[in-house]
Amino acid sequence: LDTKLPKVGTTIFTVMSQLAIEHGAVNLGQGFPDFNVPERLIEALDRAMREGKNQYAPMTGIPALRQAISAKTQRCYGYRPDPETEVTVVSGASEAIFDAVAAVVRPGDEVIVLDPCYDCYEPAIDLAGGRAVHVPLDPQTFAPDWNLVRAAVTPKTRLLMINSPHNPSGAMFTVDDIAELTALLRDTGIYLLSDEVYEHIVFDGRVHESVLRYPELRHRAFVVSSFGKTYHCTGWKVGYCIAPAALSAELRKVHQYNTFCTFAPAQWAFAEMIEAEPEHYEQLGAFYQAKRDRFREQLLTTRLKPLTVPGGYFQLVDYSAVSDLDDAAFCRWLTVEKGVAAIPLSPFYEVPPSGQRLARLCFAKNEATLDAAIERLQKL
Amino acid sequence: LDTKLPKVGTTIFTVMSQLAIEHGAVNLGQGFPDFNVPERLIEALDRAMREGKNQYAPMTGIPALRQAISAKTQRCYGYRPDPETEVTVVSGASEAIFDAVAAVVRPGDEVIVLDPCYDCYEPAIDLAGGRAVHVPLDPQTFAPDWNLVRAAVTPKTRLLMINSPHNPSGAMFTVDDIAELTALLRDTGIYLLSDEVYEHIVFDGRVHESVLRYPELRHRAFVVSSFGKTYHCTGWKVGYCIAPAALSAELRKVHQYNTFCTFAPAQWAFAEMIEAEPEHYEQLGAFYQAKRDRFREQLLTTRLKPLTVPGGYFQLVDYSAVSDLDDAAFCRWLTVEKGVAAIPLSPFYEVPPSGQRLARLCFAKNEATLDAAIERLQKL
Ligand SMILES: CSCCC(=O)C(=O)O
Ligand SMILES: CSCCC(=O)C(=O)O
Repeated sequence: LDTKLPKVGTTIFTVMSQLAIEHGAVNLGQGFPDFNVPERLIEALDRAMREGKNQYAPMTGIPALRQAISAKTQRCYGYRPDPETEVTVVSGASEAIFDAVAAVVRPGDEVIVLDPCYDCYEPAIDLAGGRAVHVPLDPQTFAPDWNLVRAAVTPKTRLLMINSPHNPSGAMFTVDDIAELTALLRDTGIYLLSDEVYEHIVFDGRVHESVLRYPELRHRAFVVSSFGKTYHCTGWKVGYCIAPAALSAELRKVHQYNTFCTFAPAQWAFAEMIEAEPEHYEQLGAFYQAKRDRFREQLLTTRLKPLTVPGGYFQLVDYSAVSDLDDAAFCRWLTVEKGVAAIPLSPFYEVPPSGQRLARLCFAKNEATLDAAIERLQKL
Repeated sequence: LDTKLPKVGTTIFTVMSQLAIEHGAVNLGQGFPDFNVPERLIEALDRAMREGKNQYAPMTGIPALRQAISAKTQRCYGYRPDPETEVTVVSGASEAIFDAVAAVVRPGDEVIVLDPCYDCYEPAIDLAGGRAVHVPLDPQTFAPDWNLVRAAVTPKTRLLMINSPHNPSGAMFTVDDIAELTALLRDTGIYLLSDEVYEHIVFDGRVHESVLRYPELRHRAFVVSSFGKTYHCTGWKVGYCIAPAALSAELRKVHQYNTFCTFAPAQWAFAEMIEAEPEHYEQLGAFYQAKRDRFREQLLTTRLKPLTVPGGYFQLVDYSAVSDLDDAAFCRWLTVEKGVAAIPLSPFYEVPPSGQRLARLCFAKNEATLDAAIERLQKL
């Protein structure tokens, strides 16, 4: 059987999680919390089921949830998307990205992605018949070099995909990045896909420069987020896309025939949760900042060197003092021999920067989990 | 904005459900039950959430659910697919169909579909760059004419999509159909996609001729089902695909980057439910047969003529004694003026048979709902 996705293997997240289980490693690889979702969400979901809200939700999401997302967007970014035509609930941010790419990328189109980038971007582009054009971020700071991005634009460029706060690095776009991006896209017909799933996990008083704040950007953008990171339920797979009506209409055409709609009781639960406890997402940055700071202090007692983490829930560490293995080999070794699972960066690249010695550790964990990991890392 | 899916509008199900709400019609249109899911499922799902099973499930589905599906397949069809390599849990049968088509259909490939067919088939084919080749079923019995199917095969034929029990008609493949299908596919490289979501809703002692019973068919087939119809939870969107390892591997490549995984707590709930109460799906045919029979008797008191319903939960009615409107206009009129929402058949066709005067009514409803509908239909 010839394959349509020759480059696709098992994702690094699955590989490392399996390896972690096999070897009893503390799993700081795949990004998910080891604490539970807020009690209110469980109760609301349970209530929705018992009230019989178990049949097809509207294809675009239940109105109450779309309204809650719209109102929250207004509160956070000063812009209120129309819940009827501009907000679509889908089965996780991955589906939103897949649908948006399928909706606008045509055979032969080029899509600019900034490496390292999340591993679902390129297969979605490939399946749409497009071609991913990889532009590297700075290998230390993970900031975009806008001259490189500009140089990658051709008449075939259809879409630019960005991600802030950034996975795997935690880097965040600045107002300067937004200005550069705006200038770059002005007078082009290039669409923007902004993956903002870590929107509420930002540190040290930084502001998340959501594309939704900027009229000149959002009028051409699919802005994707999800509740998985915000509400500690990565396995619930409820995400959404905010886009102008014309773009939303195209995304919905794909979504309608892809998953059609999303697990209905969770939609009721999120609609209630967002309105009832805005402090949950407002305080999420502080919640994770405490974890980040504590984990960083602990890492300073090891031979791993923690990089700066502006946002997200991943800590990059430079392991060059410990090992000269490449990152894939190092993460395997760390998992199998040292009992801590980490994620290498090379799978996020088309061409990994040579000599980069970085690994990604997830700190969305209970203190006991992080302590156990540190105890092992101290032996390096 | 040019569209990649020029033929796609809002699905007829959404259109008619909205119309039903606007006009206070009894909604026998979109196919979903108005009774609740089994209590055990709600309790199991609630327990899974409270136990913290809220993070990413394995991309292929939790092992317990894949094993339960495999064991149930053995019990029902005498064939035990390997849960590790041949069973994949996805976010509804729609996603399974979308993924399977995306996995094997290449630009320029032809895919044979049997009209009337479910409305998600063709957009999935279009997005993959393939072309749907429509072969009509018999307009009375909805049986395939295998000579017509054979005549539609070309060197470009990549996939044949079938659906039994059939939506919208309830028609079921017979052993003769299976023999014809087997002969037709023998010595070709054509893949088969068998949509079997109504597998347990079969009447009058008929046997569901699952493709999984037949080695010569299943070795080239994606067999798709879902729990939505079986467990009265169309809004939960948990489906699965059974396919040989090589085909499953290709499907998983798409699924991995489309939705990645499916709402985790429901997977635990279904794993428990399938094993604990096999009588639920074993008795589902009898449960719906009682509804079908009662509804049919009631319809005989109206001027709508019920057709034979071998399986599924839809009743086709011939309305030619009532109206000469085409089916789309009739269903609108029935909803708006007469207060009963129905689904026309024409949206399921590339070319609707001229003069067909059929509408689809869903009888997956409480007796009170069906009684209310009948009271209105008696006034026609
Ligand atoms: C879909 S598994 C990957 C989870 C994640 O977002 C990450 O680890 O980067
Ligand atoms: C996805 S809404 C359609 C539900 C259904 O299966 C039907 O009514 O045929």
